Amino acid sequence: MEKHYLFTPGPTPIPPSVLAEMAKPIIHHRTRDYSALFSQVRLDLKYLFQTDQEVLIFAASGTGAMEGTISNLFSPGDKVLVTRGGKFGERWEELANAYGLQARILDVKWGYAPKPQDVSAILKEDPEIRGVLVQATETSTGVSSDLKALGEIVRPLAGTALIVDAVSALGTFDIPMDRYGLDVVVSASQKALMLPPGLAFTALSPKAWKFTESSTLPKYYFDFRKELKNAQKNTSSYTPAVSLVVGLAASLRQIRQEGLEAMFARHARLAEATRRAMAAIGLEPFAKELPSAGVTSVCMPAGLDSEELIKILSDRFGITVAEGQGSLKGKIFRVAHMGFVDSYDILALISVLEMVLVQMGHKVKPGAGVAAAEALLLE
Amino acid sequence: MEKHYLFTPGPTPIPPSVLAEMAKPIIHHRTRDYSALFSQVRLDLKYLFQTDQEVLIFAASGTGAMEGTISNLFSPGDKVLVTRGGKFGERWEELANAYGLQARILDVKWGYAPKPQDVSAILKEDPEIRGVLVQATETSTGVSSDLKALGEIVRPLAGTALIVDAVSALGTFDIPMDRYGLDVVVSASQKALMLPPGLAFTALSPKAWKFTESSTLPKYYFDFRKELKNAQKNTSSYTPAVSLVVGLAASLRQIRQEGLEAMFARHARLAEATRRAMAAIGLEPFAKELPSAGVTSVCMPAGLDSEELIKILSDRFGITVAEGQGSLKGKIFRVAHMGFVDSYDILALISVLEMVLVQMGHKVKPGAGVAAAEALLLE
Repeated sequence: MEKHYLFTPGPTPIPPSVLAEMAKPIIHHRTRDYSALFSQVRLDLKYLFQTDQEVLIFAASGTGAMEGTISNLFSPGDKVLVTRGGKFGERWEELANAYGLQARILDVKWGYAPKPQDVSAILKEDPEIRGVLVQATETSTGVSSDLKALGEIVRPLAGTALIVDAVSALGTFDIPMDRYGLDVVVSASQKALMLPPGLAFTALSPKAWKFTESSTLPKYYFDFRKELKNAQKNTSSYTPAVSLVVGLAASLRQIRQEGLEAMFARHARLAEATRRAMAAIGLEPFAKELPSAGVTSVCMPAGLDSEELIKILSDRFGITVAEGQGSLKGKIFRVAHMGFVDSYDILALISVLEMVLVQMGHKVKPGAGVAAAEALLLE
Repeated sequence: MEKHYLFTPGPTPIPPSVLAEMAKPIIHHRTRDYSALFSQVRLDLKYLFQTDQEVLIFAASGTGAMEGTISNLFSPGDKVLVTRGGKFGERWEELANAYGLQARILDVKWGYAPKPQDVSAILKEDPEIRGVLVQATETSTGVSSDLKALGEIVRPLAGTALIVDAVSALGTFDIPMDRYGLDVVVSASQKALMLPPGLAFTALSPKAWKFTESSTLPKYYFDFRKELKNAQKNTSSYTPAVSLVVGLAASLRQIRQEGLEAMFARHARLAEATRRAMAAIGLEPFAKELPSAGVTSVCMPAGLDSEELIKILSDRFGITVAEGQGSLKGKIFRVAHMGFVDSYDILALISVLEMVLVQMGHKVKPGAGVAAAEALLLE
């Protein structure tokens, strides 16, 4: 008998009801059925993004929408500030370089959050900076950013846009786009949205739309202005990923039913339960500040290899957790608790982790981690 | 009771077995299960594309891979020749313009195929042309191109690449990429591959890979060289559209089982049966030359509106066929017979068409179209 359990920060588990929707015979995208579904999806995405602006949908991974943000807002030579505290900060930098922008880097030690006062100081020193590129959650480290503080810094600057990669963050904690003054929010389907990968989302503030008017970089598939016009006519520029949008309608319905507040509270509880359990097991958190509500990164005890842990979890227990990326390979593992995950899942995972760590020679009192999680979950 | 029948040139019907595969719990893309599946997919795609080259997969619509072809092969100011005989010829032109290429247009009357001798004459007159951009099948008109003849013209020219949009053509008729000397072949999932939209494919000849070395246009998500390196390591640059790739594995297995030759023969028979039926019903084909094996475009009788026909088919019979695009709106309709379609489907559709046309006032002898199709299918 084989049962599989997915604890990776994308893809994440998909509710059977959503899988069933996507398994229905496919419909054409220029039909009344699809139009009705799409107009509801557009409304529900505004609810999820907490914005009055249109949320654009692309058939792509999140990186596609990150690229579109660069090519639609900027022109060659434009200066941007990248907060680089992990693999996805590096992705902003690579994208800026690929399009001939001047990327100024604010290096953030992996495991720490970018300091808003550092961003503020750089923007004061260099008022030519037209974009601040951050991660809402840096998936590679499990660290979030203080979006509220960053919004307060960038909002008064008419010539600077605050651009947020919220691929692994949206839906896991409160990111009120309009209220915080975020100018671009990018996300994707395979995280808290409980869908397969293949849809990317982006929403732009009025300030960001203004930026698109002067951008001279080439764009076509990710042409935001063209997509906006089509979305407002309730259609899309190119053939949409129909089955994924059908799944999206179902997952957004579920999110509406739970409600954003309850959804954020659930993620916060699962994250806190996971962190307390890891502490009780004697494992150090890798995220030293603003730990993510969606993914917890954990340091391996000295002398033990996370690759081995991950292999045992997979081979013997059917559990997939994520490894460390880049220089963190072997040193950390990452447990996602985003989307279609509940306390049952987290408790079982913690218990299995205890067993495997005992086997690997780490000193754990069996049940200690689970007890710590239970205590929090009973609160 | 509601039953639905899809006869559009993308999306096309999806086999229930493929839907069932995609409805299984999602797997992570950095696991042995996914790796094993992906390496088989890579082999099967080479079989389908009839090439020894790697076939790249992107989470995108076909247009994304068309854009990638422009941004990976060319540099600003490069001259290309676009054969423009429908909406997708126009898309090549728009893409070339978006990236600052000089697009020379060979205008082809809609409903006709580009003449290879015209292409040859232009290339002789202007040896600076670096790319010839064609459609294997122009989906908006249902006309194919003579790829064999075009390959013979372009193959000897070291500085010119033959670039083929085979989005709606691949799998419907024989397109032996390597044998014909095609330099880029682009396709997508939602046509003969019997999958939802959301995957784009592209394969490059050694000549085309050479072109990518000197290209200076910006690219990131559709960076072919990066994707090739990752594909050869059996992975992908960004999160793949896992559920669609799982479906792809199943549909390619089915294509292997049928065999390319039998698959092409089936498409040819269904197309010919459809054309003969339309003639027997007294409807003119819109494609005057090289009619597509995947989609048949049909002129409405004088005085009748195809929009009305399409509405009745949908409202009363649950049948979706495609309308005419651009200036052809109301004047033609298009019936796709690609992918998971057989004679049962086509015969029923012809019969319903007879009924609806009679109701709309067109003189049809009931059964005449079906009889013509039967005669061909019995051959």
